[in-house]
Amino acid sequence: MHISPDFLRRVAGVAAAETLPRFRAQGAVDNKEAAGFDPVTEADQQAELAIRRLINAEFPDHGILGEEHGSENLSSSHVWVIDPIDGTRAFISGLPVWGTLVGLTIDGEAVAGMMSQPFTGELFYADGAGSHYEGPGGPRRLATRKTENLAEAISFTTTPSLFKGDMRKRYDAFESKVQLARYGTDCYAFAMLAAGCVDIVMDPGLKPYDIVALIPIIEQAGGIVTTFDGGPAENGGDIVAAATPQLHEAAMAALRN
Amino acid sequence: MHISPDFLRRVAGVAAAETLPRFRAQGAVDNKEAAGFDPVTEADQQAELAIRRLINAEFPDHGILGEEHGSENLSSSHVWVIDPIDGTRAFISGLPVWGTLVGLTIDGEAVAGMMSQPFTGELFYADGAGSHYEGPGGPRRLATRKTENLAEAISFTTTPSLFKGDMRKRYDAFESKVQLARYGTDCYAFAMLAAGCVDIVMDPGLKPYDIVALIPIIEQAGGIVTTFDGGPAENGGDIVAAATPQLHEAAMAALRN
Repeated sequence: MHISPDFLRRVAGVAAAETLPRFRAQGAVDNKEAAGFDPVTEADQQAELAIRRLINAEFPDHGILGEEHGSENLSSSHVWVIDPIDGTRAFISGLPVWGTLVGLTIDGEAVAGMMSQPFTGELFYADGAGSHYEGPGGPRRLATRKTENLAEAISFTTTPSLFKGDMRKRYDAFESKVQLARYGTDCYAFAMLAAGCVDIVMDPGLKPYDIVALIPIIEQAGGIVTTFDGGPAENGGDIVAAATPQLHEAAMAALRN
Repeated sequence: MHISPDFLRRVAGVAAAETLPRFRAQGAVDNKEAAGFDPVTEADQQAELAIRRLINAEFPDHGILGEEHGSENLSSSHVWVIDPIDGTRAFISGLPVWGTLVGLTIDGEAVAGMMSQPFTGELFYADGAGSHYEGPGGPRRLATRKTENLAEAISFTTTPSLFKGDMRKRYDAFESKVQLARYGTDCYAFAMLAAGCVDIVMDPGLKPYDIVALIPIIEQAGGIVTTFDGGPAENGGDIVAAATPQLHEAAMAALRN
């Protein structure tokens, strides 16, 4: 199924109208005035409602699974999966590395999706035919790098503290093998993987709405994304994405040892 | 001394002309083609040369200390301190949280400075009379938050692994006391402190060019920035910045214990 880029742009637009005015808004209010004022929750909820309205109008038979407002019509073969603000901690810290995630699954497989960052004016999307970027510098096709070895790889994870017990030791062993390890960017790191800027992204404990939209963007740019044991990423879990199959295998092997 | 905002805008402009075309450029080239092609080093060196030309033309009697091209005329009472790209690891990873830092010291004290992020089109600057923002959403005065307690604070550091030995234990103890700890943003975190989005930024082992430009931006927004033992930050070292004097004292106390 081919999804119209224009529909994905409209989704990004209605989400931005709810998120962007509330971004950094907490900096403008006094702590006391702020009691009961939670801009990130308001932005999350209102953006998801706006996205749902657009999907319901365009695809009334499709199902929807959202982070904020639950599920509807999940027996449909076509289900949209929404995270209105992925990276809420970046959002509340004023950092422009959060994103709006909207993906489409058909019979459980992620086939199209978008990640938008309205402050930078960037849209990363996969429409079923390819993976694309629109933003500063103009539109272009997304393509992962050709990196095959851990020693040449730039790796991202939200924070090592999400790896617990024995898994932390294995993560640290993996990290010691890569060229550069960086922390703290949520969905933006996966977008940079698709864009050929970084090579590996690893995040444990993801929910479906954290990753479904990103799967087609990565895969249609040439990358690979699975659970740590190589299973499908659509149901979330411990997720590893890599620029090439060889690098993906090397990352999984490092985690096993 | 009052520094013209227009001069700081011109500094940001000549730097952006060298950095922005090279940002994410490595994603466009094959690994083999990329041999010998180092966009971040080229951007760093060319941006500093452009900034130096502007300063030399406008203030021929002033001294300059730069990361890439050394020092000139440091016996002057007025010395400009330049880091053309602070956050090179963010730059090479495609993340828009690096910045160009240019600060002015008079008799060793930081009095004016700017941090620019050309991909987002943001300029944070202090001109001696106040601290200001220009970018998406329009211009505004910068002001730190009123947070006084660690338990309500959002704290940033580049990575905990920069804290070694006993200092790492003390950093971890400090981190356990704050509301939210985040990693990985270099100069952008200090700008977010001045903007009232985060409350504490802590980074060990900074060079003067990593921090001089940011001192006036933080101080003229109402914040405080010193070494871990409360000394002046102008010479670099282990640096802690906070939104209020009370919070700054609490952060220093947590590191001492």
